[in-house]
Amino acid sequence: MTDFQHKSSPGLTHLDGEGRPRMVDVSGKETTFRTATAGGRVRLNREIADALGEGGLTGKGNVLRIAETAGIMGVKKTPELIPLCHAIRIDGVTLSCDLNAPEQRVEIRCTVWGRDVTGVEMEALTGVSVAALTIYDMCKALSKDMVIEGVRLMRKTGGKSGDYEAEGGSEDADS
Amino acid sequence: MTDFQHKSSPGLTHLDGEGRPRMVDVSGKETTFRTATAGGRVRLNREIADALGEGGLTGKGNVLRIAETAGIMGVKKTPELIPLCHAIRIDGVTLSCDLNAPEQRVEIRCTVWGRDVTGVEMEALTGVSVAALTIYDMCKALSKDMVIEGVRLMRKTGGKSGDYEAEGGSEDADS
Amino acid sequence: MTDFQHKSSPGLTHLDGEGRPRMVDVSGKETTFRTATAGGRVRLNREIADALGEGGLTGKGNVLRIAETAGIMGVKKTPELIPLCHAIRIDGVTLSCDLNAPEQRVEIRCTVWGRDVTGVEMEALTGVSVAALTIYDMCKALSKDMVIEGVRLMRKTGGKSGDYEAEGGSEDADS
Amino acid sequence: MTDFQHKSSPGLTHLDGEGRPRMVDVSGKETTFRTATAGGRVRLNREIADALGEGGLTGKGNVLRIAETAGIMGVKKTPELIPLCHAIRIDGVTLSCDLNAPEQRVEIRCTVWGRDVTGVEMEALTGVSVAALTIYDMCKALSKDMVIEGVRLMRKTGGKSGDYEAEGGSEDADS
Amino acid sequence: MTDFQHKSSPGLTHLDGEGRPRMVDVSGKETTFRTATAGGRVRLNREIADALGEGGLTGKGNVLRIAETAGIMGVKKTPELIPLCHAIRIDGVTLSCDLNAPEQRVEIRCTVWGRDVTGVEMEALTGVSVAALTIYDMCKALSKDMVIEGVRLMRKTGGKSGDYEAEGGSEDADS
Amino acid sequence: MTDFQHKSSPGLTHLDGEGRPRMVDVSGKETTFRTATAGGRVRLNREIADALGEGGLTGKGNVLRIAETAGIMGVKKTPELIPLCHAIRIDGVTLSCDLNAPEQRVEIRCTVWGRDVTGVEMEALTGVSVAALTIYDMCKALSKDMVIEGVRLMRKTGGKSGDYEAEGGSEDADS
Repeated sequence: MTDFQHKSSPGLTHLDGEGRPRMVDVSGKETTFRTATAGGRVRLNREIADALGEGGLTGKGNVLRIAETAGIMGVKKTPELIPLCHAIRIDGVTLSCDLNAPEQRVEIRCTVWGRDVTGVEMEALTGVSVAALTIYDMCKALSKDMVIEGVRLMRKTGGKSGDYEAEGGSEDADS
Repeated sequence: MTDFQHKSSPGLTHLDGEGRPRMVDVSGKETTFRTATAGGRVRLNREIADALGEGGLTGKGNVLRIAETAGIMGVKKTPELIPLCHAIRIDGVTLSCDLNAPEQRVEIRCTVWGRDVTGVEMEALTGVSVAALTIYDMCKALSKDMVIEGVRLMRKTGGKSGDYEAEGGSEDADS
Repeated sequence: MTDFQHKSSPGLTHLDGEGRPRMVDVSGKETTFRTATAGGRVRLNREIADALGEGGLTGKGNVLRIAETAGIMGVKKTPELIPLCHAIRIDGVTLSCDLNAPEQRVEIRCTVWGRDVTGVEMEALTGVSVAALTIYDMCKALSKDMVIEGVRLMRKTGGKSGDYEAEGGSEDADS
Repeated sequence: MTDFQHKSSPGLTHLDGEGRPRMVDVSGKETTFRTATAGGRVRLNREIADALGEGGLTGKGNVLRIAETAGIMGVKKTPELIPLCHAIRIDGVTLSCDLNAPEQRVEIRCTVWGRDVTGVEMEALTGVSVAALTIYDMCKALSKDMVIEGVRLMRKTGGKSGDYEAEGGSEDADS
Repeated sequence: MTDFQHKSSPGLTHLDGEGRPRMVDVSGKETTFRTATAGGRVRLNREIADALGEGGLTGKGNVLRIAETAGIMGVKKTPELIPLCHAIRIDGVTLSCDLNAPEQRVEIRCTVWGRDVTGVEMEALTGVSVAALTIYDMCKALSKDMVIEGVRLMRKTGGKSGDYEAEGGSEDADS
Repeated sequence: MTDFQHKSSPGLTHLDGEGRPRMVDVSGKETTFRTATAGGRVRLNREIADALGEGGLTGKGNVLRIAETAGIMGVKKTPELIPLCHAIRIDGVTLSCDLNAPEQRVEIRCTVWGRDVTGVEMEALTGVSVAALTIYDMCKALSKDMVIEGVRLMRKTGGKSGDYEAEGGSEDADS
């Protein structure tokens, strides 16, 4: 904690006592290894689920590969998009978009890790959101009845606030 | 339709017949006035809903104003985030983040409009997503049990595919 | 004026009646040819003025050419930097950084023009600001006693609000 | 031609008579339909050509799909990368990365089209360059002996300067 | 100092001996804690000062909160805007825009801090400039007679060149 | 190596076993001092070579200075352009564009260095590519018969994979 950091609103650390935005002071925090996994899904209709499902034969699975690429690039744009987010060192990212054809949805998972003084939760959540938007964009000529749902943090490790696991377990939380 | 446009995958217009990505040809489309409204919400817990609710007195409502600002800036970043999206002329944007304290959620609406040859749906959906992520970021010190839900197109007008209204009406669809 | 545009705060058109930010509706405005010239200056000390003045012989004048390049690129970044600014069509940009050695300052002028429904004032002002910051950056190893001053609109033409000329004439306003 | 445009260096229209950079005046030019096709290639060694060639079976062809996605996104970043380039309306983009296994190279083609007052050559060339760099990045763990070659304009149509066809025909020019 | 660093122009370290731009070598510099505070102001007329002054009651103070948000985002864009600036680790940012109604101006202060091998002066100055431009944008419908003035470094600490305090003291320098 | 890293395609480390893109795990790698030099050239015709050659007298040499500036800014944009590239700490950049008038080409060299866990090869190659595109843009009014050639890594040092020197020596490889 330095003297650059003024008294904050209780609980809302991104505002000072007068409601001004600020990028919170992380200069007193230690560099540790941190990970975060976020999840989400795009609810499809039957027509879109079928179109994506033919990917194995005709390359349509590429919709999901392009969304994964976009999501990883989105991870890197996090501090540009979220006003008070720190730019942090990222050691790796995995992002998967899996068609669940019977349930008519694409399940998205994004894991980000790195060694820095603040966490990578926003990066993982942004990766999921950008992947979901990309799927929406590529399928919207078929139908606009898609919904992006359940975008949330599933698990994080590292940092002072300790580990976190979404209620119900990270596997079930999606249903 | 120009001869630059090759045969596409049936229904998935962003892929050509071999599964390659492409930015779809809009050169044959007419400039018309187009609008799109997207919605979404951030589910909070009680503690966060209470903290945001004190805004009138202490400036904490600024969390929502900052999220609105971020969302509008996110609208302008849409073609940078979504790989195959065209950059289009935007005539105006409104974006609102409203605390629904009893239901413990923030309701987000984003309307984008402009005169161009392709629609503004992705812009409206991106605005909602970036606003939602910003709220998450600013409240996550209190709790990480937030979920971004129901991000979807509520209504669009203009363009060849005609007007669209989400099932159940744009007002109810959020519940 | 469309029905997407709600009642605004009197005079502060970028806020609606409840203080929310918005990108103002320009859908009812006509495309016209618009120009804007902004000016500003960087006040130097003697040492920096002398170092820049040797440019003719040793290539140090390149500091000013690099600042001009940065300023023109800054013009294009205006809608990314200014939250509620529309992205507009730009037909051309000139930007000059001239050393006034006796007065120990660099004079900056930026003119932007284009045919669109809203003006290019912010583009011209942003060009001047980014050029000024670039000069500061490249000279700060010599001294940090520089000041960016007098950044203002000097003249605009086109648009409903009509032509504008800064008081005192665009030539004198700088002194 | 407006009076905003000063005398230029003969032939080098991006510099004024004193060597300053400027974004050239296009306000007197007519909106026409314009296309540009650029080409280029990445020379590989045998090991990389073999690894990419297994794509049909194991998904490694995805390297080329990811490079195509990156190239299309690169097209949209052209005015951010090239200092004096105008941002223009793009109606469509196709970009292909094809493995030529016997010749041990990836052939890249990018076609961009749109209706605007200035051409899309730089967009097509930037798309090829970014796709080539992406292939380099994804294969460099195997070998660093790759070379990006033959990046050039193959054909353009539209605009005052008329149509252009690279010498030797656009098909042969690559060899 | 490595052998990558060639002889520079005396005093203008961002140019080599032949006038070429370069990003200066910081590989021999130590990581230390660094801070910088920059200031500036936007001179208003009476009408704008009055409009901003009603903020307490009607939310118009939000103009200043939005400008603060834009300024903090601008801090993060510094290495994109200033050609030869290093991207550095930022530990925190505060930025305030205060209406001085009697003097008809908004006073801007931006403090940036971090642990890195080079300073944060440009970040603080860029934050002030972007906040000032945002205020200009949001108030320009009322009057274009605003001027951005006195943008300068007020104080820095850390680094080899030692601490710096603007002449006259950081408090008075603004008048 | 963490458990976040799944089995990869043999040799193509940016794809996992199912062909998904990922940002490769560098969390187990050590911070070392790394350098990379890339080279390339723009082949001109006689008219352009002559126009650039008059730079000493009339400031046209500025084309090359502007291209160097753009190239250095391009270095910083590498992780935005190349989907799976890590953002890394850069300690310095030099970039030179030299007219070889007799051979009718501009020779480009870019050296990047820094202390990080992964290399700077892509940064150096991107710098060369963006500088080459900028030269193309500024000279294309004279002729479109330019070709960007020989963009390749010439030398790298540092990192686990050890030092690399392009075959034929970094000096000759360009011919």
